[in-house]
Amino acid sequence: MNPSWVLKHRPDGEVQSTDLEMVESPIAPLADDQILMKNIYLSLDPTNRVWMSSRDQYLPPVGIGEVMRGVTVSVVEDSTSSRFQPGDTVLLGQGGWQLYTACDASKATRIRRRDNIPLTAALSVLGTTGLTAYCGLLDVCRPNSGETLVVSAGAGAVGSIVGQIAKIKGCRVIGIAGGPDKCRWIVDDLGFDGAIDYKSTDVGDALDRLCPDGVDMNFENVGGSIMDAVFSRMNLNGRMALCGMISSYNSEDPVAGPADFGRVLMKRLTIQGFVVLDYLSRAREAYADLAAWIGSGQLLWKDHVVHGLDVAPEAMNRLFSGNHDGKLIVQLADEPSDATFLQPLPAGPGKRGQP
Amino acid sequence: MNPSWVLKHRPDGEVQSTDLEMVESPIAPLADDQILMKNIYLSLDPTNRVWMSSRDQYLPPVGIGEVMRGVTVSVVEDSTSSRFQPGDTVLLGQGGWQLYTACDASKATRIRRRDNIPLTAALSVLGTTGLTAYCGLLDVCRPNSGETLVVSAGAGAVGSIVGQIAKIKGCRVIGIAGGPDKCRWIVDDLGFDGAIDYKSTDVGDALDRLCPDGVDMNFENVGGSIMDAVFSRMNLNGRMALCGMISSYNSEDPVAGPADFGRVLMKRLTIQGFVVLDYLSRAREAYADLAAWIGSGQLLWKDHVVHGLDVAPEAMNRLFSGNHDGKLIVQLADEPSDATFLQPLPAGPGKRGQP
Repeated sequence: MNPSWVLKHRPDGEVQSTDLEMVESPIAPLADDQILMKNIYLSLDPTNRVWMSSRDQYLPPVGIGEVMRGVTVSVVEDSTSSRFQPGDTVLLGQGGWQLYTACDASKATRIRRRDNIPLTAALSVLGTTGLTAYCGLLDVCRPNSGETLVVSAGAGAVGSIVGQIAKIKGCRVIGIAGGPDKCRWIVDDLGFDGAIDYKSTDVGDALDRLCPDGVDMNFENVGGSIMDAVFSRMNLNGRMALCGMISSYNSEDPVAGPADFGRVLMKRLTIQGFVVLDYLSRAREAYADLAAWIGSGQLLWKDHVVHGLDVAPEAMNRLFSGNHDGKLIVQLADEPSDATFLQPLPAGPGKRGQP
Repeated sequence: MNPSWVLKHRPDGEVQSTDLEMVESPIAPLADDQILMKNIYLSLDPTNRVWMSSRDQYLPPVGIGEVMRGVTVSVVEDSTSSRFQPGDTVLLGQGGWQLYTACDASKATRIRRRDNIPLTAALSVLGTTGLTAYCGLLDVCRPNSGETLVVSAGAGAVGSIVGQIAKIKGCRVIGIAGGPDKCRWIVDDLGFDGAIDYKSTDVGDALDRLCPDGVDMNFENVGGSIMDAVFSRMNLNGRMALCGMISSYNSEDPVAGPADFGRVLMKRLTIQGFVVLDYLSRAREAYADLAAWIGSGQLLWKDHVVHGLDVAPEAMNRLFSGNHDGKLIVQLADEPSDATFLQPLPAGPGKRGQP
């Protein structure tokens, strides 16, 4: 039997466990060229909340009665495909909030195992999270050395990688994050030039102090008043990569654009929304660069693993409260014992890998 | 003596003649490498209203007590420069609202005379107006054949050229304009696929009818609710070239962005503000293309000429009421009799040139 979370009704505000229902269903026998996988890790991302809503979005909303959509790292248990053998570790874009997934083999991507990097990285720094940061910064923001970048949710899974890549590219980087611990981490360990604790500081005042010459690039994950504070300080020819608007995801209400939209014209700004799905063709190059930066100690990250399929709905809300420390991942089952990912990380600055 | 309009105080709302003062001042003798010009035509553009305000903008505001800034077509009367002779016709980016301008020769650009094209075209289709349309469409909107473009102020000096170039590039073009005559002109004479009279029609309803498959590109001249109606119908990977926000220029209040800004993310839209000054390096190619399209009858335009420096402040308001028909130009003095521009236009569709 396969336990799974199905969407019962669309959440109003924060996700409640009662918005989803845990059901058990039998696993159907495989058709030709299919695989049955056990899902080991499930990625939790702010965009999952959008999928639960009926708002106009970039994928069809998850239907009522359907298994909740989610990206998983999974191990093949059974296969009628010549491409996969039992024991293979794969990434599944739509593994879902369930313990087992059976689907066409074409939906799975073999994960390249890398020494000394934990398997969870396939959902974080070496997964769509890292690809989002890489392409959003390099392809959308298009940084030039010496420019100033402000990244909101700067200690988040995406934002922390964005800031570090920007540092590698010679930029000045200011992160906006919630709380002193996160602010300390991005400055002391990740090398950001400054951090703004939006929970205790007026973001606009802090930006005036930390970015006296304005902001050239905004990697925006939050939206709302934080975005507006950055926007109103954007320089001539500034670029905003709109990656997320987490401040609005718990509501169905439309979220307003910048209050002084005329600045787009006067400062010749470019605002570009993007979704990582548009950049899958860049994945090979991105992962090679990201892995190299990890190897050279220039790129650190944290995975925050919670345990058990049953906690998934509740854990989702940590993304919105900020009550998590790194990429949020649910572990659904034990890792297979032969995974090279399980090798201990080398001694280093001490902040790499799981907290 | 040189009559000129100087800015007396910043307008509140529409420009009043009392916001400027007509003064007469003596013309100083030329220094080395300078020219004295008589200004024949003065361009009136919505952006002039922005220059009169103190809002944060792309050029310094015109100072109180300074001659109002304006682009002119001028004839050299006296020269201490080896580059210009009396009688030369030049374009002057900052000729100003005055009859005579004396300045460094480096500020003037010789106008290339083209057979059968009136001199006023140097301020419209073959001037910054045409360059704005050309670069805003081709470089910012980046049209693909078969895509749908909506252009606001579609019968305006810029918008009417934008739509015609888009047609040349194989796009479907819908123009938003004020009143039946303008709507008829852009469809019947310019070949737009449809027109929306915003004065008598709900723009959103009309867009639903005329663009059932949504909008790929928005060339935006107006802002406000008209922009919002187009924005909320933008397709995946849509582009908005923000050229102007004329609906807000008579106010100092900030003007809000799109009401559903989340669409930028969900549809991966790109919004780019631009100012023609950034594209001067494209002028040679643009004018060659524009002149060729004029020659082949594919590009029509209208210049609306009013007469006398004294009417300039009042004429400005026509830009905001829509009470003009084509590029608004003030004639300050007679054209020199030897200008080849004065040759009559060839018989054609009958809508080319001055009305």
